[in-house]
Amino acid sequence: MKLICSQGDLSSNLSLVSRAVPSRPTHPVLANILLQADAETNQVSLTAFDLSLGIRTSFSAEVLESGAIALPAKLLVDITSRLPEGEITLDDSVDAGGEGIIVTLKPKSGRYQVRAMGAEEFPELPVIENAEAIHLTTAALIEGLKGSLFATSSDETKQVLTGVHLTLKQDTLEFAATDGHRLAVLETTNERPVEGSEQVEVTVPARALRELQRMLGHNATSEETVAVYLDQGQVVFAWQNQRLTSRTLEGQYPAYRQLIPRQFERQVTLERKQFISTLERIAVLADQKNNIVKVSIDNANQEITLSCEAQDVGSGTESMPAQISGEDIDIAFNVKYLMEGLKELPSSEIQMHLNQSLTPVIFTPLGGLKMTYLAMPVQLRN
Amino acid sequence: MKLICSQGDLSSNLSLVSRAVPSRPTHPVLANILLQADAETNQVSLTAFDLSLGIRTSFSAEVLESGAIALPAKLLVDITSRLPEGEITLDDSVDAGGEGIIVTLKPKSGRYQVRAMGAEEFPELPVIENAEAIHLTTAALIEGLKGSLFATSSDETKQVLTGVHLTLKQDTLEFAATDGHRLAVLETTNERPVEGSEQVEVTVPARALRELQRMLGHNATSEETVAVYLDQGQVVFAWQNQRLTSRTLEGQYPAYRQLIPRQFERQVTLERKQFISTLERIAVLADQKNNIVKVSIDNANQEITLSCEAQDVGSGTESMPAQISGEDIDIAFNVKYLMEGLKELPSSEIQMHLNQSLTPVIFTPLGGLKMTYLAMPVQLRN
Repeated sequence: MKLICSQGDLSSNLSLVSRAVPSRPTHPVLANILLQADAETNQVSLTAFDLSLGIRTSFSAEVLESGAIALPAKLLVDITSRLPEGEITLDDSVDAGGEGIIVTLKPKSGRYQVRAMGAEEFPELPVIENAEAIHLTTAALIEGLKGSLFATSSDETKQVLTGVHLTLKQDTLEFAATDGHRLAVLETTNERPVEGSEQVEVTVPARALRELQRMLGHNATSEETVAVYLDQGQVVFAWQNQRLTSRTLEGQYPAYRQLIPRQFERQVTLERKQFISTLERIAVLADQKNNIVKVSIDNANQEITLSCEAQDVGSGTESMPAQISGEDIDIAFNVKYLMEGLKELPSSEIQMHLNQSLTPVIFTPLGGLKMTYLAMPVQLRN
Repeated sequence: MKLICSQGDLSSNLSLVSRAVPSRPTHPVLANILLQADAETNQVSLTAFDLSLGIRTSFSAEVLESGAIALPAKLLVDITSRLPEGEITLDDSVDAGGEGIIVTLKPKSGRYQVRAMGAEEFPELPVIENAEAIHLTTAALIEGLKGSLFATSSDETKQVLTGVHLTLKQDTLEFAATDGHRLAVLETTNERPVEGSEQVEVTVPARALRELQRMLGHNATSEETVAVYLDQGQVVFAWQNQRLTSRTLEGQYPAYRQLIPRQFERQVTLERKQFISTLERIAVLADQKNNIVKVSIDNANQEITLSCEAQDVGSGTESMPAQISGEDIDIAFNVKYLMEGLKELPSSEIQMHLNQSLTPVIFTPLGGLKMTYLAMPVQLRN
């Protein structure tokens, strides 16, 4: 293997795929990045894979001799990111003892040699052969991820709740996430209708989707489309020269649709940012106790009052205007769950739909995207 | 006590002094910020003091009623920083039970009440009465701090080495810091010569000086002067409406001047940034082993070569031009100590002065500021 490439291409692509390199590899080869160079196409592809998450990218280079090799990820990323701009020559050789492989990196000045491993030891990245691709715009995919990822559980023992549940319907892809305390559901539109009537559902680890979010954020414009392949056990996202694969999570995802009430006795329309900043101030006091904030709905004055009483510390109360239909009620929330959902709702005005003080409360954006955020109220303690 | 002030003034001054509030106070009152309001001058002063570091600032406000009170620091900082811009009314009252003091904070909308403590419980900030002030420009003080603080020890058991040693001479103030592995010495010029021939020396905790650096960075232009009062046991920095006091560290500071060789057999002039970036790349390999980098000085080619051999991992070598006088030599350094000093040297070209491979090496800037950085070479292991 021998190739000449630019420092920028090598460094940016190495750091992109290195996100899939496990910090504590279960097998030595997984601490490596697979480099494959093709002299016919003058393309170099880089792959990292922790047996669950896999990332592959490719870029153009002058490939003088085809070949493949597994390179130590951390060392290569750290060296190439610090090299000055310019051409880098990469080639491999067998070391003096005849036992190991040595890769030599020659930038403009200087010379670096690192021990590498054979490409044959690197595991194959999974492929999905029979599934039909769904096509989403990058913008729709980013919206779906942003509106669901925050609501996943970070508790690894909670299995399927650590992932986002994707439901593919004919015209839409639905993203759902819950950690047992709240639920976020978001629907995006497929670019082209999917053929066949079968509804596919998979749960994808949040970690893989966060990487996807990061990659899309850096490299894609919203006009592009991403091909998504869903299958039991595996999901693949492919666009341009990039590809992310992930194992899916096993287990039955909660039947979340039935948690969302169909009718509401009360409805409140609020200015979202004002609601958030008021909550943030009251949260300073709530933080001293149990994070519980009281929301009082006052129909006569068309305003809501947020308050918190933290014994032995102090108290806070603020009111803000709202359009209210339905009778007055006091309702209490864990301020953290409330705030996280409000921050992701994609509109300047939002609606709060509620029934009684201990039944699920739904927040939706006014106009635009189809997103539903459900927060469970808590008992009001005095 | 009753006053009206702007949210911006209150919030920025609270967060400034709150840096001196201990995270684990030894006495409840130390978790507070002392607020003193004077109706005659319409000035409000805020003080925080952990019994070693003290910070006081003052700002203008409409003081309706003079008074003093100790306010819970974290709560006040967190609430006021989140309030919208505008006027805030602050007043105190005795609570319903007649036992505690309650402070009421009224922003444009809403109302916050927090429990406070009596001002009489708050310890007095130390004053230095008999010492004459030294006057430094802010720029000179910032340079002195920047060129010394990084070389202090972070190991709390090392006593005086966790501070910067200040030596006041007639025309200069000398800053010195060492952690036993390297030494940084920097001399700045006093704005006005100090009267009297006595040489004053104190060691000031790095923590206090880092706060000073932060405050100067935010609030001062380089044209201003800072008054410095040095005394055994206490040091005070005062400028504009701000004041920082610190206890000094006890114990004999090392006689560092005698560590610096007076004559050198070899001298190397280098481009500082190129030296740093080359070291950073070689450091990637050194990081795999013992952080040791070899520097080979080649008089014939007027270049130096940096290299590292990390067994079982790889190796790296790079050369760069240099103006060299003296014979060829190989010398090895711990790359971390080398780099930290090089980053603080305030010039684009630097000089390295050395004798043998295991005697102290001195780095100085070319022109400008008087700074000396001493690094001890290490044994070269193969």
